[in-house]
Amino acid sequence: MSATRPRYAIGLDFGTESARALLVNVADGAIAATAVSQYAHGVMDRALPDGTPLGHEWALQHPQDYLDSLAEAVRAVACEAGAKAEDVVGIGVDFTSCTILPTDADNVPLCLHDRFRKAPNAWVKLWKHHAAQPQADRMTELAVARKEGWLRVYGYRLSSEWLIPKTLQIVEESPEVYDAAAHVIEAGDWVVQQLVGRHGATAPRSACNAGYKACYVKSEGGYPSKEFLRALHPALETLVETRLAGAILPPGARAGGLTAEWARRLNLRPGTPVGVEIIDAHAAVPGCGVSAPHEMVMVMGTSTCHMMNSRERAFVPGVAGVIEDGILPGLYGYEAGQACVGDHFAWHVRQGLPDDYRKEAEARGLNAHQLLTEKAARQRPGQHGLVALDWWNGNRSTLMDANLTGLMLGFTLATRPEDIYRALIEATAYGTRVIIEAFEGDGVRVDGLVACGGLAARNEMLMQVYADVLARPIRVAAAEHTSALGAAILGAVAAGADGGWRDVGEAAERMVSPPTRTFRPIAEHAAVYDRLYAEYAALHDHFGRGGNDVMKRLKAIRAEAAGNQQPAENAE
Amino acid sequence: MSATRPRYAIGLDFGTESARALLVNVADGAIAATAVSQYAHGVMDRALPDGTPLGHEWALQHPQDYLDSLAEAVRAVACEAGAKAEDVVGIGVDFTSCTILPTDADNVPLCLHDRFRKAPNAWVKLWKHHAAQPQADRMTELAVARKEGWLRVYGYRLSSEWLIPKTLQIVEESPEVYDAAAHVIEAGDWVVQQLVGRHGATAPRSACNAGYKACYVKSEGGYPSKEFLRALHPALETLVETRLAGAILPPGARAGGLTAEWARRLNLRPGTPVGVEIIDAHAAVPGCGVSAPHEMVMVMGTSTCHMMNSRERAFVPGVAGVIEDGILPGLYGYEAGQACVGDHFAWHVRQGLPDDYRKEAEARGLNAHQLLTEKAARQRPGQHGLVALDWWNGNRSTLMDANLTGLMLGFTLATRPEDIYRALIEATAYGTRVIIEAFEGDGVRVDGLVACGGLAARNEMLMQVYADVLARPIRVAAAEHTSALGAAILGAVAAGADGGWRDVGEAAERMVSPPTRTFRPIAEHAAVYDRLYAEYAALHDHFGRGGNDVMKRLKAIRAEAAGNQQPAENAE
Repeated sequence: MSATRPRYAIGLDFGTESARALLVNVADGAIAATAVSQYAHGVMDRALPDGTPLGHEWALQHPQDYLDSLAEAVRAVACEAGAKAEDVVGIGVDFTSCTILPTDADNVPLCLHDRFRKAPNAWVKLWKHHAAQPQADRMTELAVARKEGWLRVYGYRLSSEWLIPKTLQIVEESPEVYDAAAHVIEAGDWVVQQLVGRHGATAPRSACNAGYKACYVKSEGGYPSKEFLRALHPALETLVETRLAGAILPPGARAGGLTAEWARRLNLRPGTPVGVEIIDAHAAVPGCGVSAPHEMVMVMGTSTCHMMNSRERAFVPGVAGVIEDGILPGLYGYEAGQACVGDHFAWHVRQGLPDDYRKEAEARGLNAHQLLTEKAARQRPGQHGLVALDWWNGNRSTLMDANLTGLMLGFTLATRPEDIYRALIEATAYGTRVIIEAFEGDGVRVDGLVACGGLAARNEMLMQVYADVLARPIRVAAAEHTSALGAAILGAVAAGADGGWRDVGEAAERMVSPPTRTFRPIAEHAAVYDRLYAEYAALHDHFGRGGNDVMKRLKAIRAEAAGNQQPAENAE
Repeated sequence: MSATRPRYAIGLDFGTESARALLVNVADGAIAATAVSQYAHGVMDRALPDGTPLGHEWALQHPQDYLDSLAEAVRAVACEAGAKAEDVVGIGVDFTSCTILPTDADNVPLCLHDRFRKAPNAWVKLWKHHAAQPQADRMTELAVARKEGWLRVYGYRLSSEWLIPKTLQIVEESPEVYDAAAHVIEAGDWVVQQLVGRHGATAPRSACNAGYKACYVKSEGGYPSKEFLRALHPALETLVETRLAGAILPPGARAGGLTAEWARRLNLRPGTPVGVEIIDAHAAVPGCGVSAPHEMVMVMGTSTCHMMNSRERAFVPGVAGVIEDGILPGLYGYEAGQACVGDHFAWHVRQGLPDDYRKEAEARGLNAHQLLTEKAARQRPGQHGLVALDWWNGNRSTLMDANLTGLMLGFTLATRPEDIYRALIEATAYGTRVIIEAFEGDGVRVDGLVACGGLAARNEMLMQVYADVLARPIRVAAAEHTSALGAAILGAVAAGADGGWRDVGEAAERMVSPPTRTFRPIAEHAAVYDRLYAEYAALHDHFGRGGNDVMKRLKAIRAEAAGNQQPAENAE
């Protein structure tokens, strides 16, 4: 490595549809190049590549896509920046999660075996594969019945997205696949193991994945007990010592060095340090430059993830996980979430626009979001007279109830589309306030807020509403791709003394630019929003905590109706 | 009158924007001709004809328009049908209400005096003039405080649309107009008095107007007492004996014969019998062929009026009036209403349509209502998962609360415009069920339902939903213009032995065709709607009866917000 040449870290960000590579200058965080490579098979939710049909709520991926896309994206950024192999000091990886696959004794995905090519359970189950809901429900019931100590870490409810329910689905539906599986592994860990040529009991697995998605709780002795797993299904008794075996390490710890073969494929040095993987949302924490406790990072897009570190562990009801080393080494990482944020606004604009709005948008070259935002921004808090419960896709934190549905009230004949648009934005802000108040109500203080993601970058009106509703300043992260930058930071930390940085704090300080904007609450607005939030909170509790379970009953009636035949007319 | 020539009755239907004349064969109800004449000045809600500006919520009309339009429409139908003067045996009139004007000792409108031409309070106050709300509120308070016996007849709340609040507005704002007024009179009564050349203490006024709009309760001694009126305002003490003096007669009683001057102007016989006027909605009862007690008529349009006769008087909470002789002589007429029915669906389509819906509607030559109706008709009850409170314009019956607002819940990301459309239709059906249950809960049984109005005539899907929700058959009136036909029936009854009919029962039997269609409940649907109605009823009571007054607080916050300045953004 020449002293006069730049030092780069590569951040690899594996999303739902594609992988992104970010080539970042380790000294100052400057982005030298970025490239995206779409997965050849994308999300398979109807059929396998050979046409084998998939069931309702299935979502699979092809593991070869990850390797092909990462190779394409890495070569592209190196080429674009004119980077030499020796300029790259480390590689970090973030990945969607829980995205798992079964592999053989050589860590080869079972779905690549001829024998299992037509077996859906042999393929990668993507995070949004929701077909393991019955398994998740049974697991929750069993854990409640057995009073499992680790259950409180997850707010007393387990998600169908997580590793053990997905694995149980394999066991129950395709025992031959489970029998043939030497490993069941997160795709992010599998990619890192490929890059560094390791697998098995001593190979690295991310504490982030294990903690947030596989019920691994360090203070409770790790994964759920043999007894619990056997009670769940006899075949699972040995799950931990066999198929989950590995070394649980914090993200950014050095997982190993790049293999010769991968070095050749990527035009990088053999032995280039690769960091332990992190979940994509969690990567935004270093990507926003946050390494201190009690700074909450909000990744705001179609949904919102709230992440924060603390030296103390507390059990906040409805927080999806409190994981030691989960985000940063030596700290408890808290994760909460809103299942539906930007999706609300997208739903609303899909309902259409009045003709005069449509013409105005066309004439002015605006999309529907821009036009409605502009009109909504002219309003004063409370002026539209509406309040909504932001549950179009259920409630993740703090109620953890997917069977809740959206509500809006205050409609009059004068209610316009921009009123509804603003009310939906405000409702998601109230939902965030419920989460922050839940943290603080359990003694976990929130000292600062940093926002990133598409909504934070694009919608100033929304950010001002959030600042006013939360009555706190919100800093907006400078980086466009905070998760990929976070991964690059973990790559620099994995490099450590070999041209990188000592820890995430040091790396973030050097590699992350300060927030570009801070939205500060306007006192007059915050006062009105305090009153409106009280209305939201009363409705939230009434409909969310059993005062009136109408939403669940409507869902049940709806499911019944879906089973009946066509309606008739009965007139003479 | 030649035995071989047809006998006709003329129905005059005075609406908000125009007058309609219907020339009807008395023998069999065949419509010989119909004509509409728009009022030259329409609704004046911004300025008087000379440009004098009007305040917020004012709505006035020009009295000369009524006379000009009736003359034009009557001559048109007679000409079209080739009717001779002697063929017309009687004239009936229905009119919007409460629509009042002050007149001089000769019954000339004060607004036609040069002196008062610029005085807004001298003009006709149309039914939807809502500027007398403060007066209505004070009158209600006073009546409650004094425990006035007549208050229960009106469900314990008075409307700003009614005669005494509107008159009090004249007194308070323009005492000189009130001083100059010899009469304060409903426009419908005024038109009838013009046609028959009578006015003053012995001239006919409609028991329908007096009872439903002027607090005239026969069993309580007529109008409110001198003491009450004096307490309301000293100038009103003599209101009843002076400006309201007249003979209160049931609709269809003979008010008199056509004057020579009007006979000339209309090309009719002098002395042609003219019936006592009826409110337009109430005219639909005879117009639907209903003369028996316990048959409810629903006039379904932008709003819905529910009318029914009974031999007994009961006080049904939230029913806007229970008036002896109010609709038919010798019976108690009950009136209830939903302030917003078709207006909900119009509101929804004003919000726009998704692009693919818009293109489909254009390609198939459908309007938005037709397209959404077609899509919604394919659904099974409960399939959309939504429930709404139909309070976009407050709630008239049975809560009588204009400060309630609309609610919808059950939204998911899959909710489509036709789901919302159907949910709004269902909500208005649930609202009707609340009214019918209120009647029956107080011992006033509802034996049958007849629907008329634009929605009943045009939307089969809606009618089937109503039949299923109400779990009762609904007959749809055959006539297109039921109010005008009802007025013609009252004209035939006014003629009586002189070529008409003895009473409304006889006239309706001969002149109204049987309902064209009957929508019958589908048992399977009705069972699902019973469950959904239970959800509606629980929400109705929670938000409508004080469980959570959020709607009122939001309205208050909204009113405050309207007073503040523009919002700011507070970002660096």
